[in-house]
Amino acid sequence: MFGLIGKMRAQPGKRDVLLDILLRGTEHMPGCLIYIVAKDPADPEAIWITEVWNDHASHEASLSLPSVQAAISEGRPHIAGFDSSTPIEPVGGVGVPSASPAALPLE
Amino acid sequence: MFGLIGKMRAQPGKRDVLLDILLRGTEHMPGCLIYIVAKDPADPEAIWITEVWNDHASHEASLSLPSVQAAISEGRPHIAGFDSSTPIEPVGGVGVPSASPAALPLE
Repeated sequence: MFGLIGKMRAQPGKRDVLLDILLRGTEHMPGCLIYIVAKDPADPEAIWITEVWNDHASHEASLSLPSVQAAISEGRPHIAGFDSSTPIEPVGGVGVPSASPAALPLE
Repeated sequence: MFGLIGKMRAQPGKRDVLLDILLRGTEHMPGCLIYIVAKDPADPEAIWITEVWNDHASHEASLSLPSVQAAISEGRPHIAGFDSSTPIEPVGGVGVPSASPAALPLE
């Protein structure tokens, strides 16, 4: 599995607009196991995103999806910047598959 | 919903032991919707945890569960420290319930 933890900063007053775009644009992404969109309660412009993917390739491929491309275009004017983006290697937990479906042999 | 994103540091060479304790100790926690345990590929001692809970109370209550208490006791000698712990307010996404079951009216 591959994952990312990132902190994004919205333009002043635009966090809710950006959250809505993020939620709509990321509904149907093949290979995406978890995509948590969250507000930072201590920072009125900050958004935290934690992603878990089958593998790095499925994350890369998602960036070319029309729905994701549209969300990037629509969201860009409302983004002030990215404070951090940390790749992670998920190993398990609640809601995390114990084995990646993509890693199972095809029948 | 309530959430946390934290970075924990294992004692040198003890990350795998600590990961195993974390995964076993957090399997059955009422109100826990997501608990992602991940390695930091760029830092051999670092562990990232992203948690999503029905509410803050269910997270607090989990700290008193015997299984969690046992994991804390077993894990503590292998923990060097905590680099960060950020409360988050999850709003949705893939794998995140759109409405908290705890928030639904009881029948």
